[in-house]
Amino acid sequence: MIVILKQDALDTDIAALKASLQAQSLCAQEIILADTRVLGLTGHDDRLSEDMLLCFPCVERIAHTREPYTLAGRGLHPDDSVFEIAGRKIGGGTFAVIAGPCSVESEAQLLSIAREVEAAGAAFLRGGAFKPRTSPYAFPGLGLEGLSLLKAARQETGLPIVTEIMSSEYLDAFAEDVDVIQIGTRNMQNFPLLRAVGSLKKPVLLKRGLSSTLEELLMAAEYVITGGSSQVILCERGIRTFEPGTRSTLDLSAVPILKRKSHLPVVVDPSHATGDWRLVESMALAATAAGCDGLIIEVHNDPKAALCDGSQSITPKGFAQLMDKAQRIRNALFSTPGGMP
Amino acid sequence: MIVILKQDALDTDIAALKASLQAQSLCAQEIILADTRVLGLTGHDDRLSEDMLLCFPCVERIAHTREPYTLAGRGLHPDDSVFEIAGRKIGGGTFAVIAGPCSVESEAQLLSIAREVEAAGAAFLRGGAFKPRTSPYAFPGLGLEGLSLLKAARQETGLPIVTEIMSSEYLDAFAEDVDVIQIGTRNMQNFPLLRAVGSLKKPVLLKRGLSSTLEELLMAAEYVITGGSSQVILCERGIRTFEPGTRSTLDLSAVPILKRKSHLPVVVDPSHATGDWRLVESMALAATAAGCDGLIIEVHNDPKAALCDGSQSITPKGFAQLMDKAQRIRNALFSTPGGMP
Amino acid sequence: MIVILKQDALDTDIAALKASLQAQSLCAQEIILADTRVLGLTGHDDRLSEDMLLCFPCVERIAHTREPYTLAGRGLHPDDSVFEIAGRKIGGGTFAVIAGPCSVESEAQLLSIAREVEAAGAAFLRGGAFKPRTSPYAFPGLGLEGLSLLKAARQETGLPIVTEIMSSEYLDAFAEDVDVIQIGTRNMQNFPLLRAVGSLKKPVLLKRGLSSTLEELLMAAEYVITGGSSQVILCERGIRTFEPGTRSTLDLSAVPILKRKSHLPVVVDPSHATGDWRLVESMALAATAAGCDGLIIEVHNDPKAALCDGSQSITPKGFAQLMDKAQRIRNALFSTPGGMP
Amino acid sequence: MIVILKQDALDTDIAALKASLQAQSLCAQEIILADTRVLGLTGHDDRLSEDMLLCFPCVERIAHTREPYTLAGRGLHPDDSVFEIAGRKIGGGTFAVIAGPCSVESEAQLLSIAREVEAAGAAFLRGGAFKPRTSPYAFPGLGLEGLSLLKAARQETGLPIVTEIMSSEYLDAFAEDVDVIQIGTRNMQNFPLLRAVGSLKKPVLLKRGLSSTLEELLMAAEYVITGGSSQVILCERGIRTFEPGTRSTLDLSAVPILKRKSHLPVVVDPSHATGDWRLVESMALAATAAGCDGLIIEVHNDPKAALCDGSQSITPKGFAQLMDKAQRIRNALFSTPGGMP
Repeated sequence: MIVILKQDALDTDIAALKASLQAQSLCAQEIILADTRVLGLTGHDDRLSEDMLLCFPCVERIAHTREPYTLAGRGLHPDDSVFEIAGRKIGGGTFAVIAGPCSVESEAQLLSIAREVEAAGAAFLRGGAFKPRTSPYAFPGLGLEGLSLLKAARQETGLPIVTEIMSSEYLDAFAEDVDVIQIGTRNMQNFPLLRAVGSLKKPVLLKRGLSSTLEELLMAAEYVITGGSSQVILCERGIRTFEPGTRSTLDLSAVPILKRKSHLPVVVDPSHATGDWRLVESMALAATAAGCDGLIIEVHNDPKAALCDGSQSITPKGFAQLMDKAQRIRNALFSTPGGMP
Repeated sequence: MIVILKQDALDTDIAALKASLQAQSLCAQEIILADTRVLGLTGHDDRLSEDMLLCFPCVERIAHTREPYTLAGRGLHPDDSVFEIAGRKIGGGTFAVIAGPCSVESEAQLLSIAREVEAAGAAFLRGGAFKPRTSPYAFPGLGLEGLSLLKAARQETGLPIVTEIMSSEYLDAFAEDVDVIQIGTRNMQNFPLLRAVGSLKKPVLLKRGLSSTLEELLMAAEYVITGGSSQVILCERGIRTFEPGTRSTLDLSAVPILKRKSHLPVVVDPSHATGDWRLVESMALAATAAGCDGLIIEVHNDPKAALCDGSQSITPKGFAQLMDKAQRIRNALFSTPGGMP
Repeated sequence: MIVILKQDALDTDIAALKASLQAQSLCAQEIILADTRVLGLTGHDDRLSEDMLLCFPCVERIAHTREPYTLAGRGLHPDDSVFEIAGRKIGGGTFAVIAGPCSVESEAQLLSIAREVEAAGAAFLRGGAFKPRTSPYAFPGLGLEGLSLLKAARQETGLPIVTEIMSSEYLDAFAEDVDVIQIGTRNMQNFPLLRAVGSLKKPVLLKRGLSSTLEELLMAAEYVITGGSSQVILCERGIRTFEPGTRSTLDLSAVPILKRKSHLPVVVDPSHATGDWRLVESMALAATAAGCDGLIIEVHNDPKAALCDGSQSITPKGFAQLMDKAQRIRNALFSTPGGMP
Repeated sequence: MIVILKQDALDTDIAALKASLQAQSLCAQEIILADTRVLGLTGHDDRLSEDMLLCFPCVERIAHTREPYTLAGRGLHPDDSVFEIAGRKIGGGTFAVIAGPCSVESEAQLLSIAREVEAAGAAFLRGGAFKPRTSPYAFPGLGLEGLSLLKAARQETGLPIVTEIMSSEYLDAFAEDVDVIQIGTRNMQNFPLLRAVGSLKKPVLLKRGLSSTLEELLMAAEYVITGGSSQVILCERGIRTFEPGTRSTLDLSAVPILKRKSHLPVVVDPSHATGDWRLVESMALAATAAGCDGLIIEVHNDPKAALCDGSQSITPKGFAQLMDKAQRIRNALFSTPGGMP
């Protein structure tokens, strides 16, 4: 860590800062750069509070010399992580698509969609049993009954299931029934839930918060990993901006940045990002070309009758077309071993 | 709800939409405006999914005719809510200041600060026992021990205590010990927690999410109220923007807007919004002049030694000066009964 | 236009509003939807000020029934526009890449880069002669001398030239020498410049402002077209968000949205959007897969020695690789006539 | 400037970087901090391109040790600037209010409003003659005729006039007729216009861009000052965020930050920031309490008939009430010499 001092910093203030650092067993090396003084800190500064430093009136600003995440970063883990989940691979040179309805609504609905997305090449089945809804009056999902229907669909199609947990109350049910536990956008910084889900040692799909930086996403992954699970899949799903034309703004630069900084797989959810079925295919193809490890796509057999988020769902026929085009991009760009464009 | 149809909408599509609406017992009244057709919907459209409508290819956009919150809004509750909490009032013409350290660190620290903020006119004591921290390696708060220390400080000073709950695991402890339960920024859309906390029927301080609209804040309040508690205090604490000069951007327009749309008290937290002690006083005074019902201010006897967020804490002496100035603004603007500027 | 009235609107206020509308020759049709009244307006409401309506205390909000742009929109111009510029096509099923250095620095530099990008398949040469720089102390470009060098490079390679105009002072020089006049991000709402450039009746490359909505971009295009030029190329180049990992956030959803709403060609600039050469290829490929009509790429033979924006420039070799991959995506997705994915 | 190197930086890359710095007459002092190496640069690094450094693969990031603005900053100019303009003071301990209609519409309108705002205590008259409008079809202002009417109103009331310049085409007219030349939000980074207006050596009111950081605002002021005018008044007028409840989000933290970093006066425009007359008074009072040097307020005698921005204008009666309350805040907080709260 580097502490840049004010140009008019008083010697007495600097001395007080140095004494405080010394009391924390940190070594502060003073460097004079023309008219500015800076302190380079060595020692165990991981737990050093940047806040504490900013309280000293002689401090102008702080510059970090290292990323704050260790387990999610590439430093100690230079190779891509590849997870094998119920016979399906995700990460590295593979390309895994997760598809299914926004909400689980009924056995007939779910089975029908599951069969169709499986036929089109999906590797995982998604479907919401517990739904975060902005309004307390909106359909909250079928809950545990939804989990049962997902299990039945897995039984039928062989697709491992991905579904969102909203509360640690249902940890046991998710531990038993779910293949990949999703942490949703609104819970990306629900730290007790991150730790609790991590403790299950199961694969976790971690969605970026609506206003989270990529560093915060990686720190949330660090929570899950320190909680116990090393199998974290990162998901870009759009950030909140001023543009009203889409529900959120899909930030595809996240794909190459996360791939460079982290060994974890990165998937993209164009359905929730855009909130508009007319944009899903083009954004899915863009994400594929950007080098993501997979996609999450909402598919509904009858979007107009969907109990939730119908406007962002494509039909099974549209999904099959999307898969075909994504595969063509994969073939065009990634046929050589190694995977990245 | 008003449905604006595309200018090139096909009659068959419009007929399909009307049939779907009729099947949901809604009446769609067609209105022709020059070259555009719109449908005005009547009947119980509260549960009608806007998503569903947007799936119909003939639909251009939707316009709402009512706010989606009922219990948090002023429509059915035109007068300001005033809550009496352990002998202190908040809301209406009153002005209540909540002050204390970011984290509870020790008995000596907390008691000392509590006595000083009480002497300077604070009405409530704040202090974090469970702390949401971006890094899993940062100080997470003292937990239940922190609650005990807060109780001791209440015993000593008479100040009711405000502290954040992060998980429903501790509902019982909060129900018994805490006067005002805080829902933090990161949990504003943790819907199970909102409902669970609401069920305790205790006062709740609800902080705006970093990227939440004011409508979403009011919908979160609606969750708490439908959960069981009608005593919700809304808190503006800054939103995330592109400006790097402050940790977040304090949105003071939220004060008059929330006061107009809702009967609930509105308080402002300039400490977390700015993240910079040098800005706390001026933003606290600005919030006071804007007509808020109270403030939340972080005060620490030794900011440089604080375990968390020291850089945004002011000293007890700075707090006393702030209170004096805020009172002068109150006297200058709000001497007439009724309270609002 | 639809005017939604407050639920507690007074009859006298509504009467005043109606009288005002009548005075402007607008017909207001009142519609009663359960407990809400709305007014549907017909007549020439194009010049009606929404602001004026919002001054009436009975008005809750306004809903538009039409897009505010006419000439830039698809309504009157359903087919894609295709522009032929000095023998190169842009728009429709074509794919045109504009490449070159950020700044024109010297004849040797420019000619060398121009030859290399031409060999790799670029259709247009870009290069800044007049540079908008945040600091008054930074290199401002070579000015008119830069234009001369661009002309020489066109002479040598046959590539038409694209360069930015910053002031109407140089209109004549641009009219004579430049094939496509670029309006930069910071000037997207410099309305006198938009009109003046439009009056030259030359092709215009219009970059989206850093915080401009897509509707505002289309309204800026409307300014250029009403100014006299119908050949406007829209450019997505990133918007400003809270994410610090990139200079701005490339908003690729802009591509399918602009293509649906407008007949004008849409190109993408991943170099300025990301500000990081390591992200340029993946974002260029993503944009190609999203269906854009072309790209703008900064290429520099010696990025470390560039006088401006070296960190976002790729080398000629990197550019050739990018072009090859983009072409493979085009072949994979767009082999069928018509062009869109 | 400090260059933080990658932990896995190659010695050959570092040597190349050092050679390049040496070639630019910069001295690079290497510092080793545990497992990280950093370079501290000394010499004339003002013109050093950060971009150039980021092209070297060994560079992780850059930290600045100084602010990039010199003339606008407090470093060389520790005292507040106070400008005397046609007998009115702005800056330092004074408080100057600029008021008037959005657009100049007619002589009768302008004179009537000018007389009323002067009677209520305004120090300057504002009014738009050249109006930046998002739509090419909207009222663009009266142009030079508007300037004539403003002069007539100054003649009548003695109020110096503030009005916006949109194009250097009218420099002569503004030089002769206008007391304070306004650079609008959309032109904050129109660098040729900043320089041209600076060359007139007249007072300039510089509005923050919708998505400009405070550092960019100060750099724009630096342009005006290097252009020739040292009398720059900074104006906070809201930034663009995701919140739809206001036209933009008024960022009042800008007031204490700009006052700390710069000697220039800071005024606040709550009318344009909020776009809603119902919010103008409370935000004006908040800005006053935050310690700004003045306000800009839109006042219209008949907001419903205004040709532009009526919805954000208050009436003369509302303005008089606002002025009375603002004065009460000034008396309550700033009676002691020195001015700041």
